[in-house]
Amino acid sequence: MSKIKLGIVGYGNLGKGAVEAIKQTDDLELVAVFTRRDPEDLTIDDPTVKKVHISNASDYKNEIDVMLLCGGSATDLPEQTPYFASMFNTVDSFDTHAKIPEFYESVNEAATKNNKTAIISVGWDPGLFSINRLMADAILPSGENYTFWGKGLSQGHSDAVRRVNGVKNGVQYTIPSESAIEKVRSGENPTLETAEKHNRVCYIVAEEGADKAAIEQEIKTMPNYFADYNTEVNFISEEELKRDHSKAPHGGFVIRGGNTGSGHKQIYEFSLKLDSNPEFTASVLVAYARAAYRLNNENQFGAKTVFDVAPGYISPRSAEELRRDFL
Amino acid sequence: MSKIKLGIVGYGNLGKGAVEAIKQTDDLELVAVFTRRDPEDLTIDDPTVKKVHISNASDYKNEIDVMLLCGGSATDLPEQTPYFASMFNTVDSFDTHAKIPEFYESVNEAATKNNKTAIISVGWDPGLFSINRLMADAILPSGENYTFWGKGLSQGHSDAVRRVNGVKNGVQYTIPSESAIEKVRSGENPTLETAEKHNRVCYIVAEEGADKAAIEQEIKTMPNYFADYNTEVNFISEEELKRDHSKAPHGGFVIRGGNTGSGHKQIYEFSLKLDSNPEFTASVLVAYARAAYRLNNENQFGAKTVFDVAPGYISPRSAEELRRDFL
Repeated sequence: MSKIKLGIVGYGNLGKGAVEAIKQTDDLELVAVFTRRDPEDLTIDDPTVKKVHISNASDYKNEIDVMLLCGGSATDLPEQTPYFASMFNTVDSFDTHAKIPEFYESVNEAATKNNKTAIISVGWDPGLFSINRLMADAILPSGENYTFWGKGLSQGHSDAVRRVNGVKNGVQYTIPSESAIEKVRSGENPTLETAEKHNRVCYIVAEEGADKAAIEQEIKTMPNYFADYNTEVNFISEEELKRDHSKAPHGGFVIRGGNTGSGHKQIYEFSLKLDSNPEFTASVLVAYARAAYRLNNENQFGAKTVFDVAPGYISPRSAEELRRDFL
Repeated sequence: MSKIKLGIVGYGNLGKGAVEAIKQTDDLELVAVFTRRDPEDLTIDDPTVKKVHISNASDYKNEIDVMLLCGGSATDLPEQTPYFASMFNTVDSFDTHAKIPEFYESVNEAATKNNKTAIISVGWDPGLFSINRLMADAILPSGENYTFWGKGLSQGHSDAVRRVNGVKNGVQYTIPSESAIEKVRSGENPTLETAEKHNRVCYIVAEEGADKAAIEQEIKTMPNYFADYNTEVNFISEEELKRDHSKAPHGGFVIRGGNTGSGHKQIYEFSLKLDSNPEFTASVLVAYARAAYRLNNENQFGAKTVFDVAPGYISPRSAEELRRDFL
């Protein structure tokens, strides 16, 4: 059986995760990585993978079945996805929730016009979490959805603590509140502000001689970022920071408490606990590359989301095998 | 907007749950309940719902968009699904895992021949659990799936304890082993026999003067049912049994621990905690009725499973609303 041929655009953490994820499959093959940098500067440990400047991507129209777009949502994808979706089937992880409708429209136009299939906003949120929010809502209409994020390293909040006077280095974790989760799991459908759902824990390396009490005070009262939250500030050494806090863990929970019939409580829960956020997100993109390829073969053109993809399309296994062993 | 018109075949716990689930929707309408009993004996609190003998179902071919088949898997569905799928779009909850391939074939033939769409084996296992087994496997190929059931009342095991000498009444719960779940959640992918994954807890009403030690001994050593398991036997009064053990709770967990890249652990988990197993299963059937109707409108005929249904098809919400509010 011939393999589905993939390309990767962008070689940051997500792109590197995609290279690793493709290696774990038998039905997918990485043809080339496209970059804005000098291609020769990329280090890819498989010599059969081509390193190509992004400006030459159109030369690969006939050699690549699906392009995995591994750029960022802020500036890369709004330009790159419509551009690549006019030449390739694509999968991306566009995650600016508020801008998804306009992003969808621009990608849909480019892909439809050129008979390509572009699956947008793939990953875990948006992505797997979205699927579970939808399904829980459809199955238990009388109920409430809750999404919790973490334990996860937050880049924006880590940047904020590092700007505080006297802070040499530091990281911030967003941690779902156990008591809030327990309330939701009990099925009582509580009203919860974001600040009640999450706590914030900081690990700070202070500068020599800095006033730690003042640092703690400034962090805990920082508007928007920390003031409304239950915030914990821990001081550690530079060595401890490097040793214990250099990974990018993340995860979270989607929980719906619903009622059926004569008031029976039904609790639906989906959760992820990820040692590496970019490697997991990349693994989801890679699985959905199968779907982009198959949908395109069925002439299902245009922009799609995870809501439009039947589960069987992301599996390397045959429909018969899935019915026999996974149903 | 006109509603999707539904019928229900079979008026046991599942059929009754379906009546309740349809009431919670705005886009679905129950036209009739079909029964093998005397239709006049059915108590349905909505007078607009027709009560019809099952032998007259064919008269409703043009009045019903989707038929929910709420019979049992042992004898009802192997006959009823192919029969009804030759006249109606159908959704059923066939759950004899080992017989799904042959069941699929017979339903597929009947439905395809008559341009109908029949979604089989819908519910939570098979059903939602199956989707999660498939997706976790596709996304994290280097890993292991684990399914735990419970806490749940097991009908077969409850029957078994009630046959023990000196037992007046009793129930048995299957309970997932907390220590096994913790091992799986740690990502170590342990080898676990079914007996290590689940404990069994019995609540027994003994007959007056019965030898409780002998009852406990007989239960704990019963081959197949209990001998291999960690089994707990509690003696209670008839009143306590009635008060505390008359519901049909169930649920369980699908967990996959996978590795990506340079050995990062990624834990994927889906779980349900259900006060009423039949009402939840019925709610899943009702949501998938939308999918049967929509797939049929797209000329996607034949037998389908949850693997063939894109999530958006089970939601009453528009694609625009889903992208804006749920993605």
